[in-house]
Parts: sequence; structure tokens; C-alpha cells
Amino acid sequence: MRFGLFQSVQLPDPKSEARYYKEALEQVVWAEKLGFDSAWLTEHHFSRHGIVSSTFTVLAYLAGVTNTIRLGSAVTVLPFHNPIQVAEQAATVDLLSNGRLDFGVGRGFQWGEYHKLNIAMDEASRRFEESMEVITKAWSQEEPFDHQGEFWRFNDMTIHPRPVQTPYPPVWVAASSPASLARVARNDWNLMIGQGEPYDQVAQQVETYRTAVGEAGYDYRPERVVVARPMYTTTSEDKARRDTEAPFMWFKRTGQEVGAPPENRTELLPDEFSSYRRRFSRDTEFDYDAMFENVALFGTPGQVAERVETLRRSGVENLIFFINYGGIEHHKVMDSLELFAAQVMPQFAD
Amino acid sequence: MRFGLFQSVQLPDPKSEARYYKEALEQVVWAEKLGFDSAWLTEHHFSRHGIVSSTFTVLAYLAGVTNTIRLGSAVTVLPFHNPIQVAEQAATVDLLSNGRLDFGVGRGFQWGEYHKLNIAMDEASRRFEESMEVITKAWSQEEPFDHQGEFWRFNDMTIHPRPVQTPYPPVWVAASSPASLARVARNDWNLMIGQGEPYDQVAQQVETYRTAVGEAGYDYRPERVVVARPMYTTTSEDKARRDTEAPFMWFKRTGQEVGAPPENRTELLPDEFSSYRRRFSRDTEFDYDAMFENVALFGTPGQVAERVETLRRSGVENLIFFINYGGIEHHKVMDSLELFAAQVMPQFAD
Repeated sequence: MRFGLFQSVQLPDPKSEARYYKEALEQVVWAEKLGFDSAWLTEHHFSRHGIVSSTFTVLAYLAGVTNTIRLGSAVTVLPFHNPIQVAEQAATVDLLSNGRLDFGVGRGFQWGEYHKLNIAMDEASRRFEESMEVITKAWSQEEPFDHQGEFWRFNDMTIHPRPVQTPYPPVWVAASSPASLARVARNDWNLMIGQGEPYDQVAQQVETYRTAVGEAGYDYRPERVVVARPMYTTTSEDKARRDTEAPFMWFKRTGQEVGAPPENRTELLPDEFSSYRRRFSRDTEFDYDAMFENVALFGTPGQVAERVETLRRSGVENLIFFINYGGIEHHKVMDSLELFAAQVMPQFAD
Repeated sequence: MRFGLFQSVQLPDPKSEARYYKEALEQVVWAEKLGFDSAWLTEHHFSRHGIVSSTFTVLAYLAGVTNTIRLGSAVTVLPFHNPIQVAEQAATVDLLSNGRLDFGVGRGFQWGEYHKLNIAMDEASRRFEESMEVITKAWSQEEPFDHQGEFWRFNDMTIHPRPVQTPYPPVWVAASSPASLARVARNDWNLMIGQGEPYDQVAQQVETYRTAVGEAGYDYRPERVVVARPMYTTTSEDKARRDTEAPFMWFKRTGQEVGAPPENRTELLPDEFSSYRRRFSRDTEFDYDAMFENVALFGTPGQVAERVETLRRSGVENLIFFINYGGIEHHKVMDSLELFAAQVMPQFAD
């Protein structure tokens, strides 16, 4: 199996941006040393819920301070960006890292980000589709091209640098509903499964995607699915709960604050974002215990290994861990990674 | 005096993007070791004339592989970018480099870049002004702000991360005409002087800016002006000419190709770009010998030191060298930097 990081930087203490960044980046360097395969950086804007706003900028820094670990975006929110600039930035990271980029993309889901950038949320899917078309063309087409889309127009376009991976970096798209899983499969994109769904739902999603890839006539391999999970391991279950509960609850609560429209008017979310209505309802307090049981890999190395095994039996071979939430102490994260590498990882060596 | 690099990556051999990048970045690391103070990276798009298209992405990588050298953009072309994203990217570089960013900005001047991005060139100055307003507000204002401009609208805006330099990184603006020099001074911005003007014109520009800063009631210090110059030093003048002429001519010629509208219809450039009409006229072959005499620092260490002294007498205390043009061999650039550091730099130690 492959293990990586799904890495974020948050800002519980508003005065400590530089420290949180430093710690999160040290965790990536440490993970590389410990044998983790990949580090995927989030993109969030305008709130303490996530302060990595320039994902490729941070990945470029990591390209300079790491050597082998793959570097991913998880995810670049395409509707927020000029697609030519995304193509240029991502290709630059691919070049600077000697071909270590994984290009994870999505349409975003936070009402607050759309609102602040003054982009209409009901354009999300159309903006995503148009951007993907421009980006893949800019990366792979030899001759200059014209583009006249709904949102963007470019003339006689050709970009530098090109990615070093051919034809371009692996594309990963986040999806959860059967319809969107089928869409990802039809486009021959790789699949990212978020960190929020229970184990049994993950199993169903993997199966739906596997079938759809086959029906679309493409090759399925288990590595084409990456699954994100909160992870923390320590000497006892009790300590695992004590170390994670407050910071994880902070993370979930701030997500609700920026995810939903003001005064919880979640009906302002377009139809296509209906699955987020419940997530962002502020009436629904997040249930830590249910998450502990059905979603996260929290506990002793033995407990965590059991959960990895459950996921493996569902066809998951590529797991990325959300380890840095809500100001959880840096040394605890470093220790948890080390313990995982020492006691869990060897059980799943291929 | 301070010495730095004005660093670019070009693409004479279309198949060697990765190699040219690697060499250019090694030159920066080498310059830091040799005692140079800064490295400023260009922004160019869509042609072999310049293939650093994501300047902050490259600066972030350099933040990871250097320790003390200041890192600048020279220049970020504001009209091409969403100003909030520029603010986020630049702040991220400032944070990742522990406050080493110099924020150099301009409005761009290449017709080809504007055309391909489908941005009207006669909007350049207005886009620049609006972007500067948004960026400095996003960096320095504590409370969220609304912005309704001609080109951008943002709601309830606040960004993360903030720059670590206070109130924000030094702002450098490229200018040459008396009117634009006065505008830079009125805004209390620092001044960048391009690499194309003869020595006597540089002296005039420094004097005009110095006077205008005083008239505007701001503090003038010589370090507030950075002057770019082509530089190459080796064992003899003859060898300096032989090593630089062909690559430098390639650089100038490709600049003309992308800078001007097709078929040399330079009248398509808006009035405010009139100073570029002559530069981009393809009828005008670039005069290498005149450049050698009146513009560049090419020659033996003794000759180069004389030219540095000429500039110093004009009030220039901050010089950045354009060293990597048109595929000039990497080892020659490395040797030239070393020779400069050994034989010229010590003569100008403060």
C-alpha cells in the first residue's frame, strides 16, 4: 500500500501564521524521511479554516526541500483561477520537482470563498469543465490554439514551461455521488475520496468507480483511487481521543463558518451543491464519537492497522492522512507519524 | 554597494526547458554563496524569450534552496493577474522565505502577451492601479474590505497568509520617463531601472527620481533605486565579446518577435506604450557594439569595475545583473559570477 499526507495549515491562533506553516512543512519533510510516498496540499481562502491559499507556491517550496516524495494539490479549485495560470504554475512545480506533481482538482464547495471572490457558485461545474479543457490542451498540444469559451478567451496560445511528466501530471478529481464518480471515470481521471465519508460508503464508492472505469473502456488499477482520512496514533485510545477531540472539533466548526451562507441560509447553495447543505448546517453539531468509530484512523497502532486493513479489503491501496488539524501540537503530529511508520506501515509493505 | 541577479530563463533549444531552469536556479544558489544580495526573477509568457511564467512559484522554490539572498519579482505583470491571487502568492513567498521578498511590479509591455491572454493593452495602466490598491489593502488592512473597481469586485475580503515583512514587502516599480518616475516617487514606491538605457540616461533617471521623492516629502536613500544591467566578465575583452554576442543577440531578437504586433504594425500599441514602438520595430537591428559601450557591463574585471564606478558616481548603489541570456553556456555564467565576486565586488564593499 501507499501512504501519504493530506496536509493543511489552519490558524487557531491568529498571530501564528508563520509558525503553523513552518510546522506543517516540517511534517512533510519528516514524512518523506519516514517513508511516506506523497504530500497533498489543500487550497482554502479567506478564513482561519485553511491558510494555504497558493497551493502551487507551497508545493514549489516543498520541491526545493524534499527529494522523492510526490507533491499533490488536493484540491486546486479550478473555478477560482485563470486556467492558463493554473497550467503554468502546475507545470512549473512539475518541472521544479522533477516530475513529482499530482494534479488534484475540484470545483470547490465553500459558499464563503465564492462569495468573497464574487464568483457565482452556480457556474462552478461549467467553469471546472472549461478550465480542464484549457489546461490539458495547454499542456499537451504542440501547436498554439485559440480558445473561446463561456468564461475565458485566449488567442494563439502556447505555454512555457511544459510539464515534465508525459503527456502531463496525473489528474485527480474529487467525487462522491454515483453520478460524479461516473463522470470522473468517463474522463479517465483518477479518483480522490474525501475524508468525511464512513468506511462502508468508501467501499461503495471504490466499487462504483471501478465498474465505471471498466465500462468506459479504461484500465482500472487500485492506485488510481486515493482516499483521505484523519489519522492520529499514540500509546492508548484514551490519549488518542484526548489529543484529537478539541483540535478536530475546532477544524470542523470553522469549516461550517466559512462553508455556509450567513445565518445558515443553506438554501442559497445551488442545487448541485445539495450534498453540502447538511454538512454546513450550523444546527448540526459535528459528532466526534461517530467520526472516531466510522471515519477516522484514530487510536493505538493496533487499532489504526485494523482500520487500514478494513480499507484495504475494500480495495483501497492509496491512503493519505489528514494529520494537522485545529492547532494539534506539532510534536504530537511528528510522534504520531513516526509511530505509524514504525508499527503500522511495515504491516502493509507490498 | 549591493549586487544581485536579474535572472531569466530563455529557451534557445526548445527541448531543454528543464535543463535551462536547472542551470538558472543553480546560478542563484551560486550567487548567494558568492555574496550577492538578491535574485530577481522575470515574468514572461508564451514564447522562448522568457519561460519563467509563474514567478512566485519559482521564488518559492528558491526560498527552499537558499537561506539569505533576497528574492524579487522583476516584474510581476499586474494586469495579467487577479490581484487577490497575487497578494496571496507574494505573501506566501514572503512567509516561506522568512521575509526575503522584494515585490517588483509593472504593467507589462509585450503586445504578444496581452493579445494571447486577450487583455486589452490600453487597459494596462488602469489595471495596474486597481491591482496595487487591492494588493496593498489585502496585505495591510486589519478588517475585511469590499472592493468594487473597474475590473475586479471582491466582498468582505481578507487574505491568508499575510506577508511577514511589515507593513508588507518593499514595492518596486519599473519606470523610465520623467512622468512615470514622478508617479513612482509620489506613491513612495522604490524604483527599478531597466537594463536597456545608456549610462547617462540612468544618471538622469536617478536624479529625477531623487528630486521627486524629496518633493513628495518622502525619504530618499540610494538603496531605493535598483538598476539592471547585462553583465559578463572574463579574462579579456575579446573573449567577453565572443562569449556574449551571439546569445545576447538571440535574446534581443526573440524579444522583438513577441513584443510587437504581427507584421511589425507597432501602431497597434496604445499611446502610453509609445516608448516601446521603437524598441520593437523589427526594422531596427539591435546594435551590439553600442550596447557594449553604453549599456552593458561586459569585459575584463577591470573594465566591469570601471563601469560599476561610473554608475556609483551617478548615485547607483544597488545593481542587479542580467547574466543568463540566449543560451550562454552555464559554466561561463558560473565563472563570470565567481570572477566578479573575487575581483570586482571587494572594490565596492561598504
